Amino acid sequence: MVEKVVHAIQDEYPDDFAWCYGCGRLNVEGHHFRTGWEGDHTITEYTPKPEHTALPRFVYGGLIASLIDCHGTGSASLAMHRKNGFEPGEGQKPPRFVTASLRVDFLKPTPHGVPLKAIGKVEEIHPKKFKVATEVFADETLCARGEVEAVVMPSSFLKEVE
Amino acid sequence: MVEKVVHAIQDEYPDDFAWCYGCGRLNVEGHHFRTGWEGDHTITEYTPKPEHTALPRFVYGGLIASLIDCHGTGSASLAMHRKNGFEPGEGQKPPRFVTASLRVDFLKPTPHGVPLKAIGKVEEIHPKKFKVATEVFADETLCARGEVEAVVMPSSFLKEVE
Repeated sequence: MVEKVVHAIQDEYPDDFAWCYGCGRLNVEGHHFRTGWEGDHTITEYTPKPEHTALPRFVYGGLIASLIDCHGTGSASLAMHRKNGFEPGEGQKPPRFVTASLRVDFLKPTPHGVPLKAIGKVEEIHPKKFKVATEVFADETLCARGEVEAVVMPSSFLKEVE
Repeated sequence: MVEKVVHAIQDEYPDDFAWCYGCGRLNVEGHHFRTGWEGDHTITEYTPKPEHTALPRFVYGGLIASLIDCHGTGSASLAMHRKNGFEPGEGQKPPRFVTASLRVDFLKPTPHGVPLKAIGKVEEIHPKKFKVATEVFADETLCARGEVEAVVMPSSFLKEVE
């Protein structure tokens, strides 16, 4: 698989926010999803591990949901960063989003053993809230559609359970 | 954490259908979610691993989505099995469901380090399709709501990508 994403937004999350099991570069055990621009769309590519099965030869739905989720928050961060005048790779710290809601429609069984590609379209629905519509392809086959509503992480987030 | 689910539906899935990364007992690397009845509700309990973080001290949303997903298909299987006159633990092979759609609303950050409990309410919406409304608690705190539409696995499923 060719990794197309050169400058991913997750590469530039502040260290304190880089521990996500899905997309945190500092989470050693995690998936390390990386999301970047491809024209006006966002893209995240990932090849599932052997154990990520629903049945043998098919990809686990929870992994697809995870991909859509992190692709959604990453896409929202990309969009707000661009709105602020920045692109990943330029060194500015991007805003970090959290997921308010996640929806996944599984259209057909997703074959295991080929790269998955999540393609997202981002829409601002509030200055601090973005909606990301995503299509997940296995090779060229559309297998799932997703929608994420992502909001800027509240500054109180880290204090919630203290 | 006390494991309350004695007879889980996943314990009785046929071997060919026990490879799910979320709930397959034969998937060595997986989560091994187990779903059973608690009165008229269904329940799945799971304590996230140290790496299942969104940020330090909070649970990864993709794991919560995965829990709701497998809890949904397991709950649908429990309900259809009961409708057919059987309970898990009696030795009959239950029907296996797949997820048609998944919805998760993240209500508040989910604290890491405590057991999660998914509680489901199952509704038949078609003889081969069930809707499962789920609430996810961390200890006693409601942190997420989910809805899964699960359908009986098509007999063609294993042939889709041949």
